[in-house]
Amino acid sequence: VAARESQIVLGLDPDPAALWPGSEPPPARGSPAERAAAAVTGHCRMLIDATAEACVAIKLQLACFERLGGPGWSALEAVAAHARARGLLVIADGKRGDVPLSARAYAQALFAGVGTPFGPAGGLGADLATVNPLLGSETIGPFIASAREAGAGVLVLVRTSNPGAADFEDLALESGEPVWERMAAIVEELGRSGVGEEGISDVGAVMGATAPAHLARARELMASAPFLLPGVGAQGGRVEELAPAFAPGRAGGLVSASRSIAAAHERLGGGPAAAARAEAERLREAAWAVSERVWTGSQG
Amino acid sequence: VAARESQIVLGLDPDPAALWPGSEPPPARGSPAERAAAAVTGHCRMLIDATAEACVAIKLQLACFERLGGPGWSALEAVAAHARARGLLVIADGKRGDVPLSARAYAQALFAGVGTPFGPAGGLGADLATVNPLLGSETIGPFIASAREAGAGVLVLVRTSNPGAADFEDLALESGEPVWERMAAIVEELGRSGVGEEGISDVGAVMGATAPAHLARARELMASAPFLLPGVGAQGGRVEELAPAFAPGRAGGLVSASRSIAAAHERLGGGPAAAARAEAERLREAAWAVSERVWTGSQG
Repeated sequence: VAARESQIVLGLDPDPAALWPGSEPPPARGSPAERAAAAVTGHCRMLIDATAEACVAIKLQLACFERLGGPGWSALEAVAAHARARGLLVIADGKRGDVPLSARAYAQALFAGVGTPFGPAGGLGADLATVNPLLGSETIGPFIASAREAGAGVLVLVRTSNPGAADFEDLALESGEPVWERMAAIVEELGRSGVGEEGISDVGAVMGATAPAHLARARELMASAPFLLPGVGAQGGRVEELAPAFAPGRAGGLVSASRSIAAAHERLGGGPAAAARAEAERLREAAWAVSERVWTGSQG
Repeated sequence: VAARESQIVLGLDPDPAALWPGSEPPPARGSPAERAAAAVTGHCRMLIDATAEACVAIKLQLACFERLGGPGWSALEAVAAHARARGLLVIADGKRGDVPLSARAYAQALFAGVGTPFGPAGGLGADLATVNPLLGSETIGPFIASAREAGAGVLVLVRTSNPGAADFEDLALESGEPVWERMAAIVEELGRSGVGEEGISDVGAVMGATAPAHLARARELMASAPFLLPGVGAQGGRVEELAPAFAPGRAGGLVSASRSIAAAHERLGGGPAAAARAEAERLREAAWAVSERVWTGSQG
């Protein structure tokens, strides 16, 4: 974040039926899934090349790759490698969550892979992975353990950006607090031993940018957690309202945008790459300025 | 269930480092992930062949395949096809959950795949898939819609079998009910339009067999939902306590067992296939007898 002066995360959720018009033609041979996966890989590479300088990470929406089966999962690996070569961190957005033994297997898939009698296999090598905490604290633990072994971190769903978040996450508990605040308390507890020199933990939270009223409260409950902030742009979230995220440092908030970057040319005109670059740069400047104000204010 | 007189689901969560001793040797060539995926496929096929007659479905733990990357996902497809050829239903246990657009992509991955400019691609062809409801009712909808198009169904996590379920699922709401009962109410609501001629809905619930005290209450709240009941055997759940599951019909409860079948030879001795067959048959008889008592009682 410091080196690039950017908190922007390029969200990649490719639809094989709506790739950039200029995408390189996929191979003429292979199964539909193989050809679509190749086309998706090419599209994501172009999007990364266009915006890398304004971004600090990519966020891979695993669902969009998985729907292409085995070739889709291989595309995921290829796109992650391309992003790393461009100096970007990789966030695996799979929102996994399961009983401890299965959580460990998911963590192997997302981080360092698994040992087999034939040698080490798999592993997406993600720097961060999103985790669903519904099954309880013990099911987040295996993700944190695997992440730490790999020098990575986790981002726990606390309060998401969709309207349906109100159904369970916002329910009031007998104790008075909403469910999501209880989740925040567990994130804080699990992350305390993982706070680094910069004051930011390796256990973060997904906090939808569409409910800025929750952000200040979330920061009270989670002093050192990095927040992944989806929902800016297409879902209505505004960068200017994200200041509480940056309280522990400029890397305290990671601002994720997908469609507003990939489809910027539909609003701005021009070629998709130039429009995506302009939109990513606009977001970068806006978010960086908000974090600058937080840090000028608290240090001035 | 009626044709096979079985409610038993064979859980498949293969560990590439602990396959059956008699597993067929994997190919000598290929990457470690490819060779491990081939070995895992062979192991699962043997396990299916050994127990198919006592079972009604397999349950694929997606995490265990995903950790082998692209080849792992292809193994998932191969194992599902093998189970179908043996007359078994396929349950995709991935506990997916995401905002509606991504939920739709996950549903495409698990059920009928996605249309691409190169033809239809992907799709595991599952008959049932487990879904995490944390992000709200609107995020379960896309799974139900895709399942119905494919003649399939969904199983929503309501009260899971692990001790950590107490952290959030059991929290008391201001209204007095625990969180899981609110989830049960949503399952009932979403499933009402999907109740078939047999009185069982295409929207079911995952109810851990380790907390039988919850089952009777769950059946009050969800009259027609089929219950997937994990946790029998290795996790301590007992078939004899599952009677409330069968209230809407003999297919009202699907009893899932993984390690207790795959590792039966460690307890019973003998070859792994014979021991697995014996354990699956023992479970089949026990569960069928419980459902028989429910139906003799209520109809006699």
